[in-house]
Amino acid sequence: MTSSRLMVIGLGPGPAEWLTPEASQALAAAKDLFGYAPYLARLPQRDGQRRHASDNREELARAREALRLAASGGEVAVVSGGDPGVFAMAAAVFEAIETGEPHWREIDVTVIPGISAMLAAAARIGAPLGHDFCAISLSDNLKPWEIVEKRLIAAAEGDFVIALYNPASKARPERIQDAFACLRASKAWATPVIFARAVGRADERIIVTSLAEADPGIADMATLVIIGSSETRLVPRPGGARPFVYTPRSYGALR
Amino acid sequence: MTSSRLMVIGLGPGPAEWLTPEASQALAAAKDLFGYAPYLARLPQRDGQRRHASDNREELARAREALRLAASGGEVAVVSGGDPGVFAMAAAVFEAIETGEPHWREIDVTVIPGISAMLAAAARIGAPLGHDFCAISLSDNLKPWEIVEKRLIAAAEGDFVIALYNPASKARPERIQDAFACLRASKAWATPVIFARAVGRADERIIVTSLAEADPGIADMATLVIIGSSETRLVPRPGGARPFVYTPRSYGALR
Repeated sequence: MTSSRLMVIGLGPGPAEWLTPEASQALAAAKDLFGYAPYLARLPQRDGQRRHASDNREELARAREALRLAASGGEVAVVSGGDPGVFAMAAAVFEAIETGEPHWREIDVTVIPGISAMLAAAARIGAPLGHDFCAISLSDNLKPWEIVEKRLIAAAEGDFVIALYNPASKARPERIQDAFACLRASKAWATPVIFARAVGRADERIIVTSLAEADPGIADMATLVIIGSSETRLVPRPGGARPFVYTPRSYGALR
Repeated sequence: MTSSRLMVIGLGPGPAEWLTPEASQALAAAKDLFGYAPYLARLPQRDGQRRHASDNREELARAREALRLAASGGEVAVVSGGDPGVFAMAAAVFEAIETGEPHWREIDVTVIPGISAMLAAAARIGAPLGHDFCAISLSDNLKPWEIVEKRLIAAAEGDFVIALYNPASKARPERIQDAFACLRASKAWATPVIFARAVGRADERIIVTSLAEADPGIADMATLVIIGSSETRLVPRPGGARPFVYTPRSYGALR
């Protein structure tokens, strides 16, 4: 058996300065690139490289197509925004392997990590993820809302900093409202809240507010929402500069 | 006022292929580099660049020294392993600003994200962080053990995948044992567990086991431990290859 391989490449949030050398090399080596159309569109065109663009809701079909080609000996890569292992393509690829052709399990799959949206958003504002945190996707086309709610309540009970992925979409604009209602019922209203939209791109927009004053309706699918723990702090700055937001490494030291 | 600045640079887990172009450029531009001695030792020497190495427990003192020099107009960078915003130097820098000289708040602080240990470890084994997850530091020199325990229980109740940072040290070898005892009391014993040590370095070692069979004593401070959710799955592979471990994007779809 010739060994076949598939690369799953994390592109990071967008700008080239956040694309790792490993990801750059893998992109250059691939003959066939699979991915969500807007992610593929970001990448420079290369001679002899084919692109297979697909829509946002077609992750599993895309993964299967890529695996089929990889199994037949192709130099195949699947690209993913952010980190491929966080609410992204890597899980779809492994699900496709588990539920697909038995010989797909022989494929050498290399996951190439990337800067996740959560890390990029946090870096822009300070260090809100500086202590224990969790990441929750609000997408409920892949899980029942009861599970999301259970996790939000557990996250509040555990006093984790919370990063919310996929906060909204046209199909379910009310989910982020429900999530904020759930968190307002159990967390202090002064808790810092950050809306970080399109981080690293031309239309980047960062808003720092509080759980009391936040308008969750401003979150779209390009927005990462971070809600602090009881320890998360704002450091006001002179001259109208945006405050720093961070969560101290030590518990209770600054109260 | 001349604007002063400080960079907080994420080096990623170690290998140059995971160092972002933004981090490389920032490292090249700095005149003074502050950091934990082993991280500084990884970086190529540059003419005219000074290194200020310090010990692991001295984050706040290191941050203050760097801020003092930055405020006086230096080209200063603080380096951090992994991502500086995740249990690392960025939170120490902002704590030093909040509790330090008022004019330090005028410093333009740029946090440069990096590949976190958690993302690198997950990539090596599949996509264990493919759905809702949390990250907890077991270090209890910075918070009471009761808080760690509360968060472990909340994480189990919320059925999060759990990434454990700082699982052990000579000063508190029993903490990881306590954590496993806590998780074994509330999670299925078949839950996949990954010990990922020194990912990306020459002595990398990855072990896939279960909550029942895991020996938490093998975790040292270079180990990242991942404990699955009820959804996390092992995909066995032929020929003695290590199984893939992943958490599906959708809830309950594969049960």
